[in-house]
Amino acid sequence: MPVVDVHTHVYPPAYTALLRSRTTVPYMRSFPDAPSAGERLVILPAEDTESTSRGRPIGPEYYDISQKLAFMDAHGIDVSVISLANPWLDWLPAGEAAETARVINDDVERMCAEHQGRLYAFGTLPLSAPAHEVVAEIKRLSGMKHMRGVIMGTSGLGSGLDDPALNPIWAAIEESKQLIFLHPHYGLPGDVYGPRANDYGHVLPLAMGFPLETTIAVTRMLLSGVWDRFQNLEVLLAHSGGTLPFLAGRIESCIAHDAHLKHEGKLEKRRDLWDILKKNIYLDAVVYADPGLKAAIEASGADRLLFGTDHPFFPPLDEGETEWLSVKSNSNAVKSVFQGDQKTADAIMGGNAVRILRLDD
Amino acid sequence: MPVVDVHTHVYPPAYTALLRSRTTVPYMRSFPDAPSAGERLVILPAEDTESTSRGRPIGPEYYDISQKLAFMDAHGIDVSVISLANPWLDWLPAGEAAETARVINDDVERMCAEHQGRLYAFGTLPLSAPAHEVVAEIKRLSGMKHMRGVIMGTSGLGSGLDDPALNPIWAAIEESKQLIFLHPHYGLPGDVYGPRANDYGHVLPLAMGFPLETTIAVTRMLLSGVWDRFQNLEVLLAHSGGTLPFLAGRIESCIAHDAHLKHEGKLEKRRDLWDILKKNIYLDAVVYADPGLKAAIEASGADRLLFGTDHPFFPPLDEGETEWLSVKSNSNAVKSVFQGDQKTADAIMGGNAVRILRLDD
Repeated sequence: MPVVDVHTHVYPPAYTALLRSRTTVPYMRSFPDAPSAGERLVILPAEDTESTSRGRPIGPEYYDISQKLAFMDAHGIDVSVISLANPWLDWLPAGEAAETARVINDDVERMCAEHQGRLYAFGTLPLSAPAHEVVAEIKRLSGMKHMRGVIMGTSGLGSGLDDPALNPIWAAIEESKQLIFLHPHYGLPGDVYGPRANDYGHVLPLAMGFPLETTIAVTRMLLSGVWDRFQNLEVLLAHSGGTLPFLAGRIESCIAHDAHLKHEGKLEKRRDLWDILKKNIYLDAVVYADPGLKAAIEASGADRLLFGTDHPFFPPLDEGETEWLSVKSNSNAVKSVFQGDQKTADAIMGGNAVRILRLDD
Repeated sequence: MPVVDVHTHVYPPAYTALLRSRTTVPYMRSFPDAPSAGERLVILPAEDTESTSRGRPIGPEYYDISQKLAFMDAHGIDVSVISLANPWLDWLPAGEAAETARVINDDVERMCAEHQGRLYAFGTLPLSAPAHEVVAEIKRLSGMKHMRGVIMGTSGLGSGLDDPALNPIWAAIEESKQLIFLHPHYGLPGDVYGPRANDYGHVLPLAMGFPLETTIAVTRMLLSGVWDRFQNLEVLLAHSGGTLPFLAGRIESCIAHDAHLKHEGKLEKRRDLWDILKKNIYLDAVVYADPGLKAAIEASGADRLLFGTDHPFFPPLDEGETEWLSVKSNSNAVKSVFQGDQKTADAIMGGNAVRILRLDD
């Protein structure tokens, strides 16, 4: 059974070229007067300072596909389903979005074709373009040999995934049987972490902001009835759903006890979260430990969990470490929870991805 | 084995009298010109509107102890460890806080004494008072017959629980072997829920804001080294830790991969979250479903989980329902996860509380 990584990011050359041509967020730049700063990637307004340490360092591990393949070899990963890292294409001017998406998706498809059998991909949608152009790109992607869905952030058309204007887009994704890989980007406002947050490096926003952003986004989809309207719409949630498996009971309880929802008649005939977790939602297994993995399995089922790494994020802190702790934490959790059940462990490590993403087509 | 509810709130008469005497947040008031509005409780600045439906309705279930006892009888709860609901006493002027806390804690102790064997309590600290007055109240509480710890929000002295100025207070709590019941109050800023949040009643802030507030607060305690300095400081986390059991793996991974923390030497000799979850943290079992409960057990151990109800919050929506769905969801999760292991189920439903809170003293 192959090992498949469904959560692994690439900035393809067409995307880095675009970022290098820009001077406002998102952009990439280097500093000729401070070569030790290296090249930097700035993707959030809060990071857009005057410092040469603005944003984060970006190197070939983000855009050189040979480094991805070397990482896969070092970790026994047979197949990667690559996706653009945030911020995707949400920020493009409406008139440029569709053409840019075509160029970038073609670039990603080319990468996959050049490494036949090792790479598949989630495409990227031009969400700032008119809806009919987004729909056209969904249809075009579904005809491409290595595309297996689309990666999407939580902002939708600018006001979230509970926006009814997304209906034609959900309909097109559902009809073309594409999987949505839902991934966070914005986190939470910085002040929720308190006045000493900088003392703790990036821990608080990375560990809590990202998972909460995903959990809020998917709960807004639920509450706005997306899955009542599109009963076959399928979503793969990053980081094992953020915190969704753990909070699902509380979310359902809060819904069942909400006088406003009852008064509006919204408690009748709705599909509940448990039903959606088992029929519409898949979870990656990027949760780093047994407690989270057990909750994810209990919520969605072991047949709906898919191994991932989040490469190239969370590299080892020490040079020369070839085996990444972040990868090992995730694969060890699968091994530990399924001690004595190799078949299910293999399914999570790759078999589920082969089946769900039709990697044997 | 008795059934013990460790998460159950009361506003004692001395506290409601205080709230009724006030006109700024927090306050209670009724509207003589609009009697159908009933009495209202306003505890958050955002709720402090001109409307007669401001805040939330408050009735005797919040302050009449005979209603608590009737609720306990209807649900087979033998013992309740009552605590003030938010916002506690954090908001009091420094000069009034200590005396007010004494009056309110005495009122709660009186309630417990009048219902010997059925009620114990967590006291409330005058956190806005000078530290020596807070410490004096901790010592006074530890000598009271029915007090078993203190309830605390996440703001500490105003800037969070990672504030080094809390050191004398942690030291006094640790020394007097009091348990801290850590409970959320503020949630997250309203705009994180997007522009359609009001369509969903109170679901998003209640289901996500509260748990995240707790998770952020306890992670800030961890990162600031509270448990390195106070190795025996014990904390009971509301709502099964918010999302802590699920995110613990991600939190530990983010710490282990943080270049800033490594550079500061903070990765050496620190106690990790797993160690603290199993030695310093207790979790209530207010998580409403199996996936969350399983994660909580995996993170802290079944011997550290304690049944709770969150009464009088989350009442049934329909009049005349005597058995509360919110209570049943929590007790059913314990039954379901421990099918065939009655001993562990009994421990979570009460035995652990008897042992940890010395209810048989």
